[in-house]
Amino acid sequence: MLKIGVIGYGYWGPNVARNFHAVPGAELIAISDLSEKRLGLAKANYPFIRAVKEPLELIRSTDIDAVAIVTPVFSHYELAKAALLAGKHIFVEKPFTATSAQARELVELAAGKNLRIMVDHTFLFTGAVKKIKELIGSDELGKLLFYDSVRVNLGLFQHDVNVIWDLAPHDLSIMAHVIPAKPTAISAHGTVHFEGGFEDIAYICVGFDGGGFLAHFHVNWLSPVKVRKTLISGDRKMLVWDDLDADEKIKIYDRGVDVKSADGGKDGVHELLVSYRSGDVHIPKLEATEALKAEAQYFVECVEKGVEPFNDGRSGLQVVRLLEAADESLRQGGTRVEL
Amino acid sequence: MLKIGVIGYGYWGPNVARNFHAVPGAELIAISDLSEKRLGLAKANYPFIRAVKEPLELIRSTDIDAVAIVTPVFSHYELAKAALLAGKHIFVEKPFTATSAQARELVELAAGKNLRIMVDHTFLFTGAVKKIKELIGSDELGKLLFYDSVRVNLGLFQHDVNVIWDLAPHDLSIMAHVIPAKPTAISAHGTVHFEGGFEDIAYICVGFDGGGFLAHFHVNWLSPVKVRKTLISGDRKMLVWDDLDADEKIKIYDRGVDVKSADGGKDGVHELLVSYRSGDVHIPKLEATEALKAEAQYFVECVEKGVEPFNDGRSGLQVVRLLEAADESLRQGGTRVEL
Amino acid sequence: MLKIGVIGYGYWGPNVARNFHAVPGAELIAISDLSEKRLGLAKANYPFIRAVKEPLELIRSTDIDAVAIVTPVFSHYELAKAALLAGKHIFVEKPFTATSAQARELVELAAGKNLRIMVDHTFLFTGAVKKIKELIGSDELGKLLFYDSVRVNLGLFQHDVNVIWDLAPHDLSIMAHVIPAKPTAISAHGTVHFEGGFEDIAYICVGFDGGGFLAHFHVNWLSPVKVRKTLISGDRKMLVWDDLDADEKIKIYDRGVDVKSADGGKDGVHELLVSYRSGDVHIPKLEATEALKAEAQYFVECVEKGVEPFNDGRSGLQVVRLLEAADESLRQGGTRVEL
Amino acid sequence: MLKIGVIGYGYWGPNVARNFHAVPGAELIAISDLSEKRLGLAKANYPFIRAVKEPLELIRSTDIDAVAIVTPVFSHYELAKAALLAGKHIFVEKPFTATSAQARELVELAAGKNLRIMVDHTFLFTGAVKKIKELIGSDELGKLLFYDSVRVNLGLFQHDVNVIWDLAPHDLSIMAHVIPAKPTAISAHGTVHFEGGFEDIAYICVGFDGGGFLAHFHVNWLSPVKVRKTLISGDRKMLVWDDLDADEKIKIYDRGVDVKSADGGKDGVHELLVSYRSGDVHIPKLEATEALKAEAQYFVECVEKGVEPFNDGRSGLQVVRLLEAADESLRQGGTRVEL
Repeated sequence: MLKIGVIGYGYWGPNVARNFHAVPGAELIAISDLSEKRLGLAKANYPFIRAVKEPLELIRSTDIDAVAIVTPVFSHYELAKAALLAGKHIFVEKPFTATSAQARELVELAAGKNLRIMVDHTFLFTGAVKKIKELIGSDELGKLLFYDSVRVNLGLFQHDVNVIWDLAPHDLSIMAHVIPAKPTAISAHGTVHFEGGFEDIAYICVGFDGGGFLAHFHVNWLSPVKVRKTLISGDRKMLVWDDLDADEKIKIYDRGVDVKSADGGKDGVHELLVSYRSGDVHIPKLEATEALKAEAQYFVECVEKGVEPFNDGRSGLQVVRLLEAADESLRQGGTRVEL
Repeated sequence: MLKIGVIGYGYWGPNVARNFHAVPGAELIAISDLSEKRLGLAKANYPFIRAVKEPLELIRSTDIDAVAIVTPVFSHYELAKAALLAGKHIFVEKPFTATSAQARELVELAAGKNLRIMVDHTFLFTGAVKKIKELIGSDELGKLLFYDSVRVNLGLFQHDVNVIWDLAPHDLSIMAHVIPAKPTAISAHGTVHFEGGFEDIAYICVGFDGGGFLAHFHVNWLSPVKVRKTLISGDRKMLVWDDLDADEKIKIYDRGVDVKSADGGKDGVHELLVSYRSGDVHIPKLEATEALKAEAQYFVECVEKGVEPFNDGRSGLQVVRLLEAADESLRQGGTRVEL
Repeated sequence: MLKIGVIGYGYWGPNVARNFHAVPGAELIAISDLSEKRLGLAKANYPFIRAVKEPLELIRSTDIDAVAIVTPVFSHYELAKAALLAGKHIFVEKPFTATSAQARELVELAAGKNLRIMVDHTFLFTGAVKKIKELIGSDELGKLLFYDSVRVNLGLFQHDVNVIWDLAPHDLSIMAHVIPAKPTAISAHGTVHFEGGFEDIAYICVGFDGGGFLAHFHVNWLSPVKVRKTLISGDRKMLVWDDLDADEKIKIYDRGVDVKSADGGKDGVHELLVSYRSGDVHIPKLEATEALKAEAQYFVECVEKGVEPFNDGRSGLQVVRLLEAADESLRQGGTRVEL
Repeated sequence: MLKIGVIGYGYWGPNVARNFHAVPGAELIAISDLSEKRLGLAKANYPFIRAVKEPLELIRSTDIDAVAIVTPVFSHYELAKAALLAGKHIFVEKPFTATSAQARELVELAAGKNLRIMVDHTFLFTGAVKKIKELIGSDELGKLLFYDSVRVNLGLFQHDVNVIWDLAPHDLSIMAHVIPAKPTAISAHGTVHFEGGFEDIAYICVGFDGGGFLAHFHVNWLSPVKVRKTLISGDRKMLVWDDLDADEKIKIYDRGVDVKSADGGKDGVHELLVSYRSGDVHIPKLEATEALKAEAQYFVECVEKGVEPFNDGRSGLQVVRLLEAADESLRQGGTRVEL
């Protein structure tokens, strides 16, 4: 039985606690929160847990095997490091850390002590992302052409991070998960509209090894309409993922491009012949399990079996590095930053 | 009565001819096309016109006051120059020319001879764009925050230009028309997927004087779905223009952002307080006249009254300069190009 | 302080209990349910209440002023009658009773004892229905032409009632609430697809005093797609209510019909000239409060002030009478049943 | 070569003429129209035809093999009879005739003279209807449960017929074409809103042999929104046909209902167990040929080979009989009319 303590019982913490409580093989032992009020709520929901105010007290508990860190990003590094040093496996809210240097240090620390790190990129456990990964993995889309993601709304301004750190972790982690090619460069454009605030809209362009494939992300707190839409085109099939569509999230288009290079056409000139195919559309039924539950279950399994999860510290580090590089490009007016 | 000759009777030429034929105050006199077949069609539709093969023969006709040039972009400059030198007013298909140097020369030439140039940015005469211009002009949106345009489809690859020169002239001309601020820099990212081809997807980011406002364009020939959507947000109201929606093209959202800068909050820290308003949505009925007809009428009026049209050579030049700079940035891997 | 007992803690009862608990002026005193398990849940959520198994025990409690009856429809009459006889005000789940005779008896009983009956037609308290009532009340739609409602899905077959008694109470109560004219006749067509089952699809047509106005309802458990859509046309404006649209539930179309009766047209023949207007569309922001909470609050107020609620026993009776007559027509193959 | 004359060059006639002109094996010989202006237009489009004013003159022409009658419905019978008597095959606009007695007489007349009648139910030749017929024919939907059609808009009031005769011929002919079962009874409800006018909204319910299956039609000239939507559910699969969707007209839902009749459940009571399946959705690519062209081609083939078309006089008669019976029910307040 894996004994788990949860640090942070604010917006997302209750979901993490609920799922670790529900998952077989795990036991929710303790919850910490700096707010007395939140702690009282945790106690009311789980009367059997130990409720402590100080996270370090929870981390030092000898009866806890793993710690879930569900706090603002600036505190991840310090808490994660303390937990690893105390010999605990960790489950950390995304983004993993505030800098890639921090992430790298934690990854090495965990490796040295043979502890598991899992970064909570919950989206990777949704039916939609699993289906996309499966489609790309089985080469159903053919040679990939581009990845285009839009995540915009009239939304909560964050007080500690810009729109890239707020919204892009979702999309960058999904892209890194489903696209086999390696990102090599990033450019970002954005703007701060309100004095003293952070960038509230941004466009991020990611280049890849080999050149042809391109990924692009639009994140925005100032859009009149909410959009959560991703296009992924291959030369064999293409897909649209609309996460706001309750029933038909993923549409797979049997559309593609065939190219023939024809020499000796009219006047002997080399000519490019591009033709289109347009066939049926397919909307697969997606797995309906709660993503966070599946993830919690997976964490327990990985710890028990001593296996590295695919959403481990290294993959969390990759996302942080992309965010960091996007920020760097943003500050330099959109300059290309090599990864 | 303004006597008009049309050069080029391919895909778009018949529409131009039909409208100049229909507009009061204009008389369609001659049509030229290098293809015998197209010329035969022109003759069948307008038995009274003079059908000539050579464009220069049409240009030299002394009974013609104005020439519409509806040919591929590479030929615009030469034909336009010949027409201006022959003392004709010109109506030129978009994009105006293949380089900004050509456009500049034509603008000067026309100015010296007191001739009119109109560049056929037909979209500027649609009910949708007129309504957007009116809304921004009357300050109904408040301080503008961003302009975001998506024009993608699985579409005809062009054999002579990339996707930017094919699709972006629409959006860049619309943006230049409705946004009062001046673009100052441009960056573009894109990719060529098929050897020997041109860029088939591209993202363009335009910066403006003063900094806060940003415009972004996504043009793409490889999308499984057709999208023609523009978001324009102001701090008072926001709008979405979906050109594929037959009845409800423009939605105006009574949504906005109010910002207060609050000193001396908790711990005396300066804090940014951002709040949202979300009210009714309004869908205005748009003018339903054919855009090209209104434009043809406007050309006749401008020539008759000796007035510069708003879509004159100078505004055509501005669009060409944006396209050219986007291309330049594209070749340099997305570097910011000052305008 | 109005002391309230809730009978039935199954699917809907917890919502009723929660709202009466939350509403100022009311005090949740007791909950009854025949299932030990459900009762245990009630006790866990509200440790301070009296949990009793037998509804009659709850009804007989002298410290209770009002009883909410949230049980299957077949038991409403007996429980409601007992409660009224015990001097309690009642809040009854819809549909009010299984027959109009039962409803009539309860209405008279309550009147004789000066007790309040409220039938829980929750939809009447939604922002959407309130807006529709307001629009019709202020004559913004003009002379009403028709009411058309579609409520279909691939849904839970009920084991005790047909699709009319399951789904139509919503729409019939809404229609009766917003349409000032009186229904005078009803016809219904439907079909039973599975041996031993109930009608699973049905169409109901309601005629009105004066003739011109017509209401129609489509209820269906066998539709591949879920639809919740109502059209209401007036000769001045028309509206569409799409209850599945999260943000834009009600669209008001400035569209209408103008009719001139022109004598002495061509050949002196009397001719009908019908013309259409098509203007802007308006999407009002709707009130966002929880409907059931507003209704619970209203119940408390009506009891306290001794005022008849608009959704009283009489209006509950009207809906039951419509359901009953629809059933009657259904059994007779669609014959028109006078009301 | 089948020599064809077209009677009527108003709204639809030009399309009929154009397609018979284009189809191989047919020759457009003559066009008649009572209006000089329309006749002039016909002559301009087809300078080689014989343009005559009087339809009977065209019908009497000895060089014509077949006549297309594209006139208002009240004139169909007289013109068709004259044409058949003159030994011509006929292609008649829908609805076939104004009464079923007329239709019956024409069917017999044609049979006696071995001439072909084709009624122009163009929709039957669209890719959508062909796909639906194929799906039902191959039993992919399983046992059919219901057919529900909505065809509403704010549309042209007709001056000679009500909304049933205007809009329902489309849907009734499609239903008759794709549904194998035989209609046995019809009920219709509707209303006249404007004095001196015709019914402008109507609901039609069609019953079938065996009972379980039901068809329903909503036709309406007073709807704020245009809808063209048909639901067809089977117990194995279900489909939605949205004719206004440019790219995804038909969606096939792998959804269905499984029913087990379970004896000896709780308390030994017979219980109905209904369960749902919900799987993938499939959007087939539809044939894109122009429907009227395929129909014209089919007419030529049927005449040449002496084969009865599926849309022959008998099937045209069936639609007229349904319309007539719907009208009869309408006048009697919705009474069930046996067919």
